[in-house]
Amino acid sequence: MEQEKIEIIEVGPRDGFQNVSQFIPTNIKLAIIDRLVKSGLNNIQITSFVHPKAIPQMKDAKEVTQFCLEKYPNINLFALVPNLFGAKAAVEYGLTEITYVISVSETHNRKNVKRTHDESFEELSEILRLFPTVKVNLDVATTFGCPYEGMYSIKTVMEFLERAYKTGVRSFNLCDTVGLADPILVKKVIKNVLTRFSDCEIQVHIHDTRNMGMVNSLAAIECGINKVQTAIGGLGGCPFAPGASGNTSTEDFAYMLNKMGYETGVDSDLIINTAKFLRENVDGNYSGHQIFINKNKVSTQ
Amino acid sequence: MEQEKIEIIEVGPRDGFQNVSQFIPTNIKLAIIDRLVKSGLNNIQITSFVHPKAIPQMKDAKEVTQFCLEKYPNINLFALVPNLFGAKAAVEYGLTEITYVISVSETHNRKNVKRTHDESFEELSEILRLFPTVKVNLDVATTFGCPYEGMYSIKTVMEFLERAYKTGVRSFNLCDTVGLADPILVKKVIKNVLTRFSDCEIQVHIHDTRNMGMVNSLAAIECGINKVQTAIGGLGGCPFAPGASGNTSTEDFAYMLNKMGYETGVDSDLIINTAKFLRENVDGNYSGHQIFINKNKVSTQ
Repeated sequence: MEQEKIEIIEVGPRDGFQNVSQFIPTNIKLAIIDRLVKSGLNNIQITSFVHPKAIPQMKDAKEVTQFCLEKYPNINLFALVPNLFGAKAAVEYGLTEITYVISVSETHNRKNVKRTHDESFEELSEILRLFPTVKVNLDVATTFGCPYEGMYSIKTVMEFLERAYKTGVRSFNLCDTVGLADPILVKKVIKNVLTRFSDCEIQVHIHDTRNMGMVNSLAAIECGINKVQTAIGGLGGCPFAPGASGNTSTEDFAYMLNKMGYETGVDSDLIINTAKFLRENVDGNYSGHQIFINKNKVSTQ
Repeated sequence: MEQEKIEIIEVGPRDGFQNVSQFIPTNIKLAIIDRLVKSGLNNIQITSFVHPKAIPQMKDAKEVTQFCLEKYPNINLFALVPNLFGAKAAVEYGLTEITYVISVSETHNRKNVKRTHDESFEELSEILRLFPTVKVNLDVATTFGCPYEGMYSIKTVMEFLERAYKTGVRSFNLCDTVGLADPILVKKVIKNVLTRFSDCEIQVHIHDTRNMGMVNSLAAIECGINKVQTAIGGLGGCPFAPGASGNTSTEDFAYMLNKMGYETGVDSDLIINTAKFLRENVDGNYSGHQIFINKNKVSTQ
């Protein structure tokens, strides 16, 4: 049987790092990205073009981008852009793929990017118009529920995606922003999305807030998704709530998929060592598990 | 549609507590068990009748047992017994259900209980003979792989279970002792076991070592298991490898199943509060996630 290919998209250098309170020196960031590449990851969200006052951790977005574009010509590199200003900067510095973000929940969207839905969709439209050759992904934040508005109907999600589709988006990243999904909800949403938007690229991005990062990401794969975003170390979330809000851990997820017989292209040992290197160098909130395993200690019970 | 019932069997007071290095005062243990009962758990492994030199944490096994038997006449209470001596003590103090343990891997069995397979099966046989009215479960340690012997064939597992069946066991608990299972392996093993041992009770007990506690426990349910062991807080594993080797977390697993529409009888809010009470009182290695959520902090990205 031919192995099913799953592409793991690494978002640690953006979603992981942005949750680290202390500035990570640029050379450390680059050393981590280098190990990610060497572990077999071919698609990496390397930074965010956001105002340094909003997220000081991303103040070296330009240096990181320039260095990586030159060093890794064969790796797919992209960045998050919260607004038109960020989009312009990202493209100016050479990126040909960017991710814009709008939340299904308008309340969350106002808190996250200080925009109404109308304002966000207008800006998205402008970005698509200005950069017709750039691949623009849409992070569909709070796809599976919102901390402010609660859970919503599939209809609400589908109408939101329909609007984005009409604006011109053909690459959607369904985000479980605060970890409110469960495997049944994931499958329900994704089946609808894959049926309606069969001409689009669909990814998922699951947070591990309620310990369902692995199970929900696998549920997505089981109903046909073959691109999953994860973060090295499961880094992410609020530094004041350890263990709470990280992303699905790249090394644990890759290990599981490899063991199950999927083809990820990621080397299980190298990616675990990369996660350990990260943890040795960056003080953060890690929700990955294998990062903590000490091979010299073996439990017997 | 009628809800599918899943029984969550709480093993925290044994498998969780035994991994806590500092002695937990008996009144704290009892306060935690009381909260577990009030959260809706009806089946609890309350202690282990093991020599106090081997596991000092369990030196109050008798007090815990006597107190619980008197206070919770309608709750199913049971204990682990590593040997005949422990079995005799457990029965003497009134328990009508005990769990004996043998590893599929003989190497692991020698390290864990200092016995060959022959010696363990002989002792098991003696326990079954001595206590014909006591329910004797068998913890099938290292069902899904061994840290010393590696992975083995389904045939090896089935032959082991066959031997235990012939000895008289009718209740098996398939344990992923060091977290080596993956969802495909879980389903493969369980399908074989349910087909061959259709007259037996089959439970699973999954460790979260490699972040697959939730996904493997759910995989077991998806192929027909309706009794799953978990530990409050995901407590467990080696205290020198934080986050590494806990059990599947009761509160996270119950929350997921409740959200998916299964009927667990466990109240999601009460069980999370019980986990938080545990963490406030016991310094240990918690692999649960919701235990760390601070409701006043809401991530927006």
